[in-house]
Amino acid sequence: MGLPLSDARALAAAALRRNGADPAAAQSVARALVQAEADGFKGHGLSRLPSYVAQLRTGKVRGDAVPQASLPRPGALLVDAGLGFAFPALDLAVERLPALARRQGIACAGIARSHHCGAAGYFVETLAQAGLVAMLFANTPAAMAPWGGRRAVFGTNPIAFACPRPDAPPMVVDLALSTVARGNIANAAKKGEKIPPGWAFDAEGRPTTDPAMALGGTMAPLGDAKGIALALMVELLAAGMIGANYAAEASSFLDDRGGPPGTGQLLIALDPSAFSENALARFGQLAAMVEDQDGARLPGSRRLAARAAANRDGLKVDEALLRDIAAL
Amino acid sequence: MGLPLSDARALAAAALRRNGADPAAAQSVARALVQAEADGFKGHGLSRLPSYVAQLRTGKVRGDAVPQASLPRPGALLVDAGLGFAFPALDLAVERLPALARRQGIACAGIARSHHCGAAGYFVETLAQAGLVAMLFANTPAAMAPWGGRRAVFGTNPIAFACPRPDAPPMVVDLALSTVARGNIANAAKKGEKIPPGWAFDAEGRPTTDPAMALGGTMAPLGDAKGIALALMVELLAAGMIGANYAAEASSFLDDRGGPPGTGQLLIALDPSAFSENALARFGQLAAMVEDQDGARLPGSRRLAARAAANRDGLKVDEALLRDIAAL
Repeated sequence: MGLPLSDARALAAAALRRNGADPAAAQSVARALVQAEADGFKGHGLSRLPSYVAQLRTGKVRGDAVPQASLPRPGALLVDAGLGFAFPALDLAVERLPALARRQGIACAGIARSHHCGAAGYFVETLAQAGLVAMLFANTPAAMAPWGGRRAVFGTNPIAFACPRPDAPPMVVDLALSTVARGNIANAAKKGEKIPPGWAFDAEGRPTTDPAMALGGTMAPLGDAKGIALALMVELLAAGMIGANYAAEASSFLDDRGGPPGTGQLLIALDPSAFSENALARFGQLAAMVEDQDGARLPGSRRLAARAAANRDGLKVDEALLRDIAAL
Repeated sequence: MGLPLSDARALAAAALRRNGADPAAAQSVARALVQAEADGFKGHGLSRLPSYVAQLRTGKVRGDAVPQASLPRPGALLVDAGLGFAFPALDLAVERLPALARRQGIACAGIARSHHCGAAGYFVETLAQAGLVAMLFANTPAAMAPWGGRRAVFGTNPIAFACPRPDAPPMVVDLALSTVARGNIANAAKKGEKIPPGWAFDAEGRPTTDPAMALGGTMAPLGDAKGIALALMVELLAAGMIGANYAAEASSFLDDRGGPPGTGQLLIALDPSAFSENALARFGQLAAMVEDQDGARLPGSRRLAARAAANRDGLKVDEALLRDIAAL
């Protein structure tokens, strides 16, 4: 038996509280990190806790921030994360959006002065569990250059999407716009291995398979110029429009150096019943067209398998990481 | 001097009217096709006219359709394109959305029983010229298989996005989720050339460089599984949610065989001033971060150069195509 999820949440929340996080914020952050860990996204899971605590200690993340929501228009919620963690602000948006989306047909929440949003699929999935179709756009610190350029201006900028279906968990899409996560390059550098072509560029904008050159350069977008165009879209939606910092203005999510990142997120929720009585059944029909094919799978199906195993067997967390967390 | 744009529009509209299109619809279609032609998107330009007319003649496209809008919720417009052309319905949505988006902060229009939306960037660009940030999702007839599968379930499903900036034309993103347009494969087949790796799969789902095998198979998505996940998102947003046909249920946009395609589009418009007084200036700052880099360019910059040349010099249209159009 691994670590039960409730124990992992308690451990994480205690470490955050001991280092100055407001109890409600600590609970929200612990829930999000443990959910990511359970869903198999270890890069957004408990491994983040030591750097989160380091950021609390220096004030790069404000532990006493309480997210504040306002409603400048009937369908537009604005949440000020107060330079605290992103998760309490995202939780507030996810709590408020269903009533707004049902009344308006479509509603959105812009979250400014925010931080790392972790596994972005979790928030849209929660909205889809409430019967809504939801999208999330988040910007992250600079990692990708404009197409044809050399200096990083865009984050890897995740897009997440979820849609309910009848008698089954929602379909969940959650992807970063780089071909791979930066962690893969750091791992290759550590092991002294080359990286595959198509992952990264060096500081001169040339494709590279040398992880050290890649770490000093920029990440490659999926689909070349098209991926960069989508990254521009996410910067404008999740940061420019709502008063958050752009990727190139944001400090790292990973260390305690510099001021707060101040990045942003935009959540959009639609009520499918506003458009069609049949929508839920139709969502199920598309899912079936995918699942009926041998070898084909819906995006997000691996996360559900990982989650079921974690709920049943607990989490397998590295012993050294657990000791680090207990000592924080 | 090439063909002046106004002459091209008159020629196209006359051909459509002679074949049963309502005069207002003919004007809307002609404007969209000529705009695409001027912007350098010849695959969505006047080359479509012979197949559009063939579809009018068989009733695959209803020439007398008049789009009908309803407002089921304060932020959600539903437009029934009536199995006519997409453009009159898109024009109606673009006309109605600015007032809705300004009042609600965010508003959307679902367009059902629709057809080919052409160069999707044009409609979001028009919304951005009105000061809004806009997205368009459109599904198209089946061309791409689920990841790991072999049968096409998703269209190449364009995503378009536009955002205003101060003292300059809007930034416009307009991309299909296949690595290349299907026309490139048909061209290679015609010339007897191989296609590059990464463009397509054969009917067994294996990568192929043989254009004939590719035409009997499926198109490759940008970014592998991530592109397919985005195509699923577009099907659900632009078709499943609003009562339109899925890609796999839709007949071709290109010939006069079968019933109406009945595909869908979803337009989302946001009023940036709902979120931040500074938004427009901030959009300009991000554009500058891109344009300040040697060799880097904003998406959509080529379309503006093509448009300026077309406005100045007229359109260079193939003589045989012009004769075909005049004879329709």
